[in-house]
Amino acid sequence: MKTGNAELICTGSELLEGKLNLYPPLFHERLAPLGFTLTREQSSGDRLADIADCIKGALGRADLVLVCGGLGPTFDDLTRQAAAKALGRRLVGSKACAQILALNFGLEKLPPNLKDQAVIVEGAKALENANGTAFGEVITQEHKMLALLPGPRNEWEPMFGSFLNAEIKDFFRRAPLTQAKLRLAGLGEPKAEALLKPAMRKAPALRYTILAGAGLVDFIISGPGPAAVKRAAARCAKAAGPAFYGEGDLTLAQAAGEKLLARKRTLAAAESCTGGLVAKLATDIPGSSRWFLGGAVTYSNAAKVRLLGVKPATLKKHGAVSGECAAEMAAGARKTFGSDYALAVTGIAGPDGGTPDKPAGLVWFALAGPRGTRVLRREFRGGRDYVRARAAVFILDELRKIIK
Amino acid sequence: MKTGNAELICTGSELLEGKLNLYPPLFHERLAPLGFTLTREQSSGDRLADIADCIKGALGRADLVLVCGGLGPTFDDLTRQAAAKALGRRLVGSKACAQILALNFGLEKLPPNLKDQAVIVEGAKALENANGTAFGEVITQEHKMLALLPGPRNEWEPMFGSFLNAEIKDFFRRAPLTQAKLRLAGLGEPKAEALLKPAMRKAPALRYTILAGAGLVDFIISGPGPAAVKRAAARCAKAAGPAFYGEGDLTLAQAAGEKLLARKRTLAAAESCTGGLVAKLATDIPGSSRWFLGGAVTYSNAAKVRLLGVKPATLKKHGAVSGECAAEMAAGARKTFGSDYALAVTGIAGPDGGTPDKPAGLVWFALAGPRGTRVLRREFRGGRDYVRARAAVFILDELRKIIK
Repeated sequence: MKTGNAELICTGSELLEGKLNLYPPLFHERLAPLGFTLTREQSSGDRLADIADCIKGALGRADLVLVCGGLGPTFDDLTRQAAAKALGRRLVGSKACAQILALNFGLEKLPPNLKDQAVIVEGAKALENANGTAFGEVITQEHKMLALLPGPRNEWEPMFGSFLNAEIKDFFRRAPLTQAKLRLAGLGEPKAEALLKPAMRKAPALRYTILAGAGLVDFIISGPGPAAVKRAAARCAKAAGPAFYGEGDLTLAQAAGEKLLARKRTLAAAESCTGGLVAKLATDIPGSSRWFLGGAVTYSNAAKVRLLGVKPATLKKHGAVSGECAAEMAAGARKTFGSDYALAVTGIAGPDGGTPDKPAGLVWFALAGPRGTRVLRREFRGGRDYVRARAAVFILDELRKIIK
Repeated sequence: MKTGNAELICTGSELLEGKLNLYPPLFHERLAPLGFTLTREQSSGDRLADIADCIKGALGRADLVLVCGGLGPTFDDLTRQAAAKALGRRLVGSKACAQILALNFGLEKLPPNLKDQAVIVEGAKALENANGTAFGEVITQEHKMLALLPGPRNEWEPMFGSFLNAEIKDFFRRAPLTQAKLRLAGLGEPKAEALLKPAMRKAPALRYTILAGAGLVDFIISGPGPAAVKRAAARCAKAAGPAFYGEGDLTLAQAAGEKLLARKRTLAAAESCTGGLVAKLATDIPGSSRWFLGGAVTYSNAAKVRLLGVKPATLKKHGAVSGECAAEMAAGARKTFGSDYALAVTGIAGPDGGTPDKPAGLVWFALAGPRGTRVLRREFRGGRDYVRARAAVFILDELRKIIK
């Protein structure tokens, strides 16, 4: 399966001075179905010569070059100048763009800063911006396309969907690619690869990508034929077994929530070491109030007793980090919130607080439901953030599996 | 203040296919005190020709080039080959590296895959790896330095601190830079800039960077003289007024926690629309159990009544999203957890659930403490995630200010 080569250029000194660049995955997601592979990403500061150099280099290598950022009205927005320089073209005023801006702002005459926004690279096609003053630009030269997009996500995202997508399709006329994203939980990358390899071998013409996080693995399949991709996805989902929990952008909490909703069941959470993270993941989902009744973050022993009815004798005999405490926390949360299911997490996130008996990374879990309570014990290795994230993923995964 | 130019190259197709690249801010943080500005970052797939092209381009522009990733023992690890190609040098076996590997693994004879790990670029200086088999490499040519580092953070991070830092200092002999990071809350980038501009003008030779998030602004000052940077930081902190809450990597929850700890006070949280996010931010901090007793995530009205003692009449008359409900939630949390302070958040995170009277983005807050209860109302504009993040930051900022 041959794909076109695309390169992404992100401008803005902040990307080199501390701000995370969230854009490459977002562009990959949009370019893959159009038949393009992202082959290089460059982040450049706001200097004209640097941006021009990035564009020139990228155009020498790739079929499609996207530049994101630097189209605004301030002095450090230099992308259209840089594109003109890289292409050896002039910048020209666009009457159509000026008219659109005047119309949008209800002005008879544009002020100087808006007038500058109506300047485009000679021969460029302007793309309307639903949420800002900067037009996008599409410039083609021989068999290549250069697209300039505004930096803010709420500006380039609708522009890509409404206009650029179609421009790329029309110009390159590549066969459309279909993509399927399988979501797996509870296993690492090597295990996922081992499980999926036999299924992958059955359709070697497709393209496969594995992305691993803390206890989560995304498996992406892409290819030219929707039927072939669908078949491969079904085969891979089957091969992944119970680790497979859904497709696309479904989160683990969402998968559990949808199962609860379908069965008209509700959930509550009792958290110690995850400190509200499980509740946060549940309530990240719009409409989660239909199945998530609430949670108790009981960091202190007194709170475990008062809110969840954990017995002081249990805490004294087994400690807060124990299966016994977890079971009482879950049962207590189920009662307190009046939910069908309740989960409990209590452990030592670290880095301090561990003992030889109960090391940092040890976590006890409980799941209370209509059919009784299940207690689980795991030890995770990693820093505080990792242990907390891993524990939250683990219990949401167990919850999803247990709902009948 | 003149700094050297550094470029970063990150290798790995996963960076172009969906994985976020977390490294540029981490390298910026380490390079700035050494007197280097990160001027470009390139992410490349695992093809030898692509990596070599990235290295060649970067060496043509920058004084210092860092390559991260692609030094492992598998077939797609091609960085040392690419570096050799870009520099026109050979790859040679290093007896010293082979001895170190044999010693570390207690082997008399190295297996083939480990033998390959003892191959370095001709003339390179090998850097030991505390957590893996891939050596780092430092290669100098005329006035430039190329450094190859293994990809995993737990491998390159100690290698940078223990060895590369000193190599860069020795080779370039640049005056060390001092950096101060001021943390501000409760204001946006334009307001921060307006407040700080007069202070910035008093030391125009220093370098200033503003990074803005949801309700948070980081202001970074750097320069060659520790005394001058310290003076400027003090001046800027004063100019920022109550928005300034700390320096370095201090989080807002940590700032509030340290004030509580110093006064031997404790906190509890009652959350509706933030769904556990405030508790999560508090418990992100190791040792937070000394001041954070716990939280109640009361998504349902029943839970607000049962756990926090909110009066059914209040819910009926004013609704869950109201100042009255927030005040009772905070007072209830203070009582339930037995804490000195309690905060409450109840609002409409969106995108659904809004009405003309109570639009999505409306959030009511309350802070209960030894001196009574304070109720606050805010409307935030943005998506669900933004409203939730903004609300959490807002109440933690108010908490920090109120603690006496």
